[in-house]
Amino acid sequence: MEGYLTVNGNRFHYIWLRHNCLCHECRHPTSFEPVHDVSELVEPPEPLSVRQQDGVLRIIWKGEASCHESVFPLAWLDHFAYDNGTGQTQGEREAERSIQPVLWDNAWLKAHLPVYYDARSVDLETWMMQLLTLGFAHLNHMEPDHLEPFLSSIGPIYNGNEGLFSAVKTVADSAELANTSHALNLHTDYAYWNIPDLISCLYCVENEAIGGESVMVDGFRIAEDFRRDHPDHFRMLTRIPVQFRQFYSDLQYDYCHTRPILELDDAGTLIRITFAPFHHYIWNLPFDRMAPFYAAYIAFLRYVNNSAYQYEFRLEPGDCLLLDNCRLLHGRRSFQGARHLEVGHLSWDCVRGRQDFYDNKHLYLGN
Amino acid sequence: MEGYLTVNGNRFHYIWLRHNCLCHECRHPTSFEPVHDVSELVEPPEPLSVRQQDGVLRIIWKGEASCHESVFPLAWLDHFAYDNGTGQTQGEREAERSIQPVLWDNAWLKAHLPVYYDARSVDLETWMMQLLTLGFAHLNHMEPDHLEPFLSSIGPIYNGNEGLFSAVKTVADSAELANTSHALNLHTDYAYWNIPDLISCLYCVENEAIGGESVMVDGFRIAEDFRRDHPDHFRMLTRIPVQFRQFYSDLQYDYCHTRPILELDDAGTLIRITFAPFHHYIWNLPFDRMAPFYAAYIAFLRYVNNSAYQYEFRLEPGDCLLLDNCRLLHGRRSFQGARHLEVGHLSWDCVRGRQDFYDNKHLYLGN
Repeated sequence: MEGYLTVNGNRFHYIWLRHNCLCHECRHPTSFEPVHDVSELVEPPEPLSVRQQDGVLRIIWKGEASCHESVFPLAWLDHFAYDNGTGQTQGEREAERSIQPVLWDNAWLKAHLPVYYDARSVDLETWMMQLLTLGFAHLNHMEPDHLEPFLSSIGPIYNGNEGLFSAVKTVADSAELANTSHALNLHTDYAYWNIPDLISCLYCVENEAIGGESVMVDGFRIAEDFRRDHPDHFRMLTRIPVQFRQFYSDLQYDYCHTRPILELDDAGTLIRITFAPFHHYIWNLPFDRMAPFYAAYIAFLRYVNNSAYQYEFRLEPGDCLLLDNCRLLHGRRSFQGARHLEVGHLSWDCVRGRQDFYDNKHLYLGN
Repeated sequence: MEGYLTVNGNRFHYIWLRHNCLCHECRHPTSFEPVHDVSELVEPPEPLSVRQQDGVLRIIWKGEASCHESVFPLAWLDHFAYDNGTGQTQGEREAERSIQPVLWDNAWLKAHLPVYYDARSVDLETWMMQLLTLGFAHLNHMEPDHLEPFLSSIGPIYNGNEGLFSAVKTVADSAELANTSHALNLHTDYAYWNIPDLISCLYCVENEAIGGESVMVDGFRIAEDFRRDHPDHFRMLTRIPVQFRQFYSDLQYDYCHTRPILELDDAGTLIRITFAPFHHYIWNLPFDRMAPFYAAYIAFLRYVNNSAYQYEFRLEPGDCLLLDNCRLLHGRRSFQGARHLEVGHLSWDCVRGRQDFYDNKHLYLGN
C-alpha cells in the first residue's frame, strides 16, 4: 500500500485514491457515502494507466473486473491534499482560516464595548464572528416566537430534562438553584453531563427584577493568567479529573460526570473549561491528592471571583445571548421580583458543519 | 489544608468536610446544591470541637462567625469515603458492583440465545442487565404509540437532524444510505458527530421486505481478538484519529468529526469503538502514516466482515432493539419491499443517573 503518485506537488497514495473513488459505483450518487468495500481488494491497488487532462486526473486500476476507472477533479485533489512534505495541507489551511479568540477582562471590554446585533436582520456570519472572537454574541429585538425557529435554523436544539428549552425563573422549592432568586456563581452549563461542545442560548422573556444582573467571565483569559501565575496549580486542574454532580429528587436522577476542570489538547492549548461551584461537591480523589487539589481549586476560584475579570450587564426582554459553553462562565446576581429566561443549547457540530457546507459544497455538487 | 480526622477507619480532610457541609446555609435545602463559597475562607478550616454520637459526626468550626456547625450522618460519610489507605472507596465499591460484559460471537450467541422481553411488562432493571452484559436488549410487543413515552421515561431523547426520531425507510434520491434499500455495513451511529455515549433504539414499524435482515457484531469482542492477533495494527487504530464525515445537501451540513476508531482508558481497557465505513472517507493523515493506517484499517474491516462474529436476525413490527452504541456495530442486508424503522437515541447519563438515584436517594432525602 506504499505506492503513490504526485499531482500538483502533492503526493497521494494509491490506496487513498482507490478508497475515495468518486464514481457512482463506489460512492452512492445522492448520499455521497462510500459503498465500495476496500477490504475486498485482493491486491493493494495499482494503476494500469494515469492521465491528467482538462482539470481532471483519470486512473484506470489494474486487476479489477470491468476496467474500473476513477476520475478526480484536480481542484478536489488540491482541496483534500494531505501531504505534509511538499504542499500546505487541508489542516494547515483550516488553521490559517480559523478565527483567533481575543481573551478579555473587564478593562478590555470597557475599551471595546461589544456590539448588540438586531436579531431581525443579523446574519449567522456576523454574530458567529463575535462568538468566535469574544466567546459570546449579543442579539436583541428578538420576538419570543422567533427563538425556536432561530435556533432550529442553525441545528437541532439540545434536548434536556425539561425539553428543548428550560425556563429559568423563581419556583417554590426548586430542585435547581437556577430556579430560585439566589445568586448563581459563574459556571458553565451541564457540567454534570457527558455532553458535546455546546453553544448556550439565554433568551430574556421578562426582567422586572431588582438585581439579577448577568455576569460573564472569559474562562480562557482567567486560565491563561492562572497558568502564568500558578503553573503547578494549573497543571493539577488539567490532570486531575473531579466529579460534577446534580441530584434531582423530582426527576429521579443523581447525575455525576468526572472530568478535569481545565482540558488541553496535545499541544497544550486550552480547549475546554468545565466549572460550576454548585455542581462541585463530594469529590472522590485519592487521599494524598485531596489537599493539594483543594489548594489549586480555591486559588482558581479566587481568580473567577475577581471582579477585574467580570463583565456585568442586564438582560432586557428580547435579548438573546449566545455563549461558547467551553470557554465562557456565566452567572447572575441575586434578585427580587419577576425575571424569566428561556435557556436552550446547540451543538457546535451544526455550526461547523454549516460553515463547512458552504466552503465545500462545490466539491460534492459541482459549481 | 492538610489536616484530617479519622471516622470508622476512613480519613477525611477538614477542607473536604467544610466544603461538603450539609447544613441549609451551605447547601441549598431543596436543590441540594452547595452555596457556600470555600474561596471566602480566610484560614484553612480547623475544628473547634468534634463529637461522634447517635450515628452522626458533629463538627464546630474554628474562627467562623456565629459558631458554624456541620453535622454528617456516619452512613453518609461511609458512603462517600475516598480514603484509599484504610477502607474500600466509593470507586472500588462501584467497580465491584458494575456488571461485567460478556463478549460474544456468533457461536456463543447460538449457544446462549438472547431472551426477547415483553415491552408491556419488562422493567428497566431487566432489560438493562441484558444491555450491560451483551451490549443489546431485545424487547417485543411494543405498540407504536408507546415508543416515545417508553424512551422519555428513561431520559430526554436525543434531538437529531430529523428530530427525536429518524425514519429509516426507502426514500427516492436519499441524502443518506440508510434511506435506500442498499445494504448497510456494520457501523455505530453518529460517528461524524461529537456525541455523548448513547443507547441506540431501533423500533420496527413495518417489515414486509424480502431481505433486510438486521446484523450485529460485538465490537469489543472483535477488537479484543484483533488486539491479540495484530497488536501493532490495534495500537495504530487506538492512537491515530481519523475523520468521520457526512455531507447533507438538503440540510446544508458537511459534518466532520475526528477521533480514533478504538478508544482506551488509562488502564488500556477498551471504552469506545466508532466505526462506519460509509462515514470513512477523505482521511487527512500525515503522509507517512497513511499507508500503515490503511493496512491496519483494512485488516480490522476484515474482522468486522467475518461472519463468525455476526448475529443475524429479522426485526418484526413491534420489536424494539436497544444497543450500546459505544460497543456494538449494527447493519442490515439489502432488501426489496417495504421496511420501516424509527430510530432514536438516549444518553447513558440518564440511565446511570437513574440507577444512582435509587442507590443514593437516602443520602439526600433520608430514609
